[in-house]
Amino acid sequence: MGNFHVELKKIVDDSYNIETGCDLWDMLKADLKNGILGKSKKIALITDSTVMELYGKCAEEAIKKAGLDVNTYVFPAGEKSKTRATKEMLEDAMLADGFKRDCGVVALGGGVVTDLAGFLAGTYCRGVPYISYATTVLAAADAAVGGKTAVDTPLATNLIGLFYQPKKVYIDVATWKTLPARQVSSGLAETIKHGCLGDKELFEYLEANMEKIRALDPDACKYISEANVKVKYNVVMNDEREESGYREVLNLGHTVGRAAETLSNYTLTHGEAVSIGLMAQAYLAEKMGFMNNTEIKRLEDLLLGAGLPVRLPGSISRDELLEKLYTDKKVRSGDLRFVLQKGIGNVATFEGGSYALKVSKQQAAEILKLI
Amino acid sequence: MGNFHVELKKIVDDSYNIETGCDLWDMLKADLKNGILGKSKKIALITDSTVMELYGKCAEEAIKKAGLDVNTYVFPAGEKSKTRATKEMLEDAMLADGFKRDCGVVALGGGVVTDLAGFLAGTYCRGVPYISYATTVLAAADAAVGGKTAVDTPLATNLIGLFYQPKKVYIDVATWKTLPARQVSSGLAETIKHGCLGDKELFEYLEANMEKIRALDPDACKYISEANVKVKYNVVMNDEREESGYREVLNLGHTVGRAAETLSNYTLTHGEAVSIGLMAQAYLAEKMGFMNNTEIKRLEDLLLGAGLPVRLPGSISRDELLEKLYTDKKVRSGDLRFVLQKGIGNVATFEGGSYALKVSKQQAAEILKLI
Repeated sequence: MGNFHVELKKIVDDSYNIETGCDLWDMLKADLKNGILGKSKKIALITDSTVMELYGKCAEEAIKKAGLDVNTYVFPAGEKSKTRATKEMLEDAMLADGFKRDCGVVALGGGVVTDLAGFLAGTYCRGVPYISYATTVLAAADAAVGGKTAVDTPLATNLIGLFYQPKKVYIDVATWKTLPARQVSSGLAETIKHGCLGDKELFEYLEANMEKIRALDPDACKYISEANVKVKYNVVMNDEREESGYREVLNLGHTVGRAAETLSNYTLTHGEAVSIGLMAQAYLAEKMGFMNNTEIKRLEDLLLGAGLPVRLPGSISRDELLEKLYTDKKVRSGDLRFVLQKGIGNVATFEGGSYALKVSKQQAAEILKLI
Repeated sequence: MGNFHVELKKIVDDSYNIETGCDLWDMLKADLKNGILGKSKKIALITDSTVMELYGKCAEEAIKKAGLDVNTYVFPAGEKSKTRATKEMLEDAMLADGFKRDCGVVALGGGVVTDLAGFLAGTYCRGVPYISYATTVLAAADAAVGGKTAVDTPLATNLIGLFYQPKKVYIDVATWKTLPARQVSSGLAETIKHGCLGDKELFEYLEANMEKIRALDPDACKYISEANVKVKYNVVMNDEREESGYREVLNLGHTVGRAAETLSNYTLTHGEAVSIGLMAQAYLAEKMGFMNNTEIKRLEDLLLGAGLPVRLPGSISRDELLEKLYTDKKVRSGDLRFVLQKGIGNVATFEGGSYALKVSKQQAAEILKLI
């Protein structure tokens, strides 16, 4: 028998910059002109129907002014579009328009657009460069760092996808003014989560400035965007491909959150469900001695101040919720796991260096009574 | 405006081994037992209907004997199955069976299986490890090195996919005995191509041992498999992600080959079409002074000896073929490009360090008259 060794060890540099500010179209133009997407003259602008109406022209003009050709691909707004079928439709349209491996992709929108367009870019001709221009609070908090791209399937959210880093991310807080207030609140849930798990200063800033933030004061919006980026960066850098386990801390509030979101038939937004989930983990943290009553009250006040719910809606049965917890994609070998806050700005660690506590069904049931 | 730098420079080691031999099932078992696919106990065996019947049980037993659980996923044999729809069907079946990010994939079959299953593994839960157990001459020549995975779309072959390296590749030449003779010949076309472009010794070995090879003498089959791996490795190492341009040399014979394959409505196999394409580039190389008449004759004899055609079938019109050349996916900015042999075992280089010659329509037309 013959054995041949294929040596493929090398240095890979996927570093990129995240720019936070108001109206970053000129910067987008300048970056494209300077070759942020390589030598390509052909750009595919991918966005959804809502964002297209609001900012499609701004993006198209920036690309054209950079001296590049742009074709725009629009899909219906909403999480329901985040599917393999939408990806396929976009790919076929780009192939029909002659896009080859030397093209580049601009993703314009919220998390659905950047997740989907990033995944598309990652498999188009085995990978073409892309940049994300994020237009939502949630995308600023969540999608700007981490390189996670994915689509949903009938059986699972976000399980088909790639780790694929953008060449640059733009967080344009001026675009938040066109978001419905409920979506702003929803996005703030992940920001509060970041404060809870890794940035006490951010938490305190949110406590002191919630009104300004909800009024979309540009400086306050920039502050929280940058703080979000830093928290997420610190987590992701420790565990880029989810191997060491530390990235699990981003799951704070999501054990109950994801289950509540599904059981509500999505009448709760993701952020609203996470808000309730944050309260659930806080009560559990209190029981385990990681949080005190004052800290719980501060968390509750902050969530309420952001316009978020802190209790389950009456329509969700606690028994059904308990069962639903066990179907979560992060449940391993049948064990329920909760990431827990330790005070404000930190998370608890458990035996074996784990960042999640195994919880019995009875313990979980008791916590659900409190929310 | 705030700028944040996401630093993601790191050393990535995608190295792996390629094992060539007869009946490598015990080695597969031992490797799995030793954790070649990580800690996972859950293995998805992916194969096609033909290979399932012949070797499915061997693979399943090896996996079970390694102490792992196996679910087998089978799709209809043939290039027509290499689609996003098949990938989706397999993904949904695996999700329904509870496969999560800690699973592993074993791809068992020829190039269609390894391309498709490798691509699936690369996007399943954002990437799970896989190994390839190759059962065809073509896969030994072509798919074992390079990390290219992909599916076809109605508009293009191999344009949606990934560079995604396996953890190990097994080339089991004992499985070749169940291949139709025509498929063996077809696979040999890529082997001959490798001799032409990068290994004079391989070429001469093929000249001296073609009968033994076609009779599937194990030593001869192992020799050519290993030589194939080495040639492809040398090319790919120089240009892993098709950036420097050197990888283009693998396109030898494919400019005319791919067009002829399509125009024949796939009555020509890929290898048969490449064989004709190799003759076309040789005639052009002769015109340009890179090959002499003796070398051309040797190439022709070798292809004929392998059971391959060296002239276009009468059903293909040279005029149509000429037009078809321009729709090839590798045609850039409207220019026809040919990689050319330089003697035997080498390729010609052109101005600007390019490995392909720009050819006018008239030049191409003249060459097509010769085949």
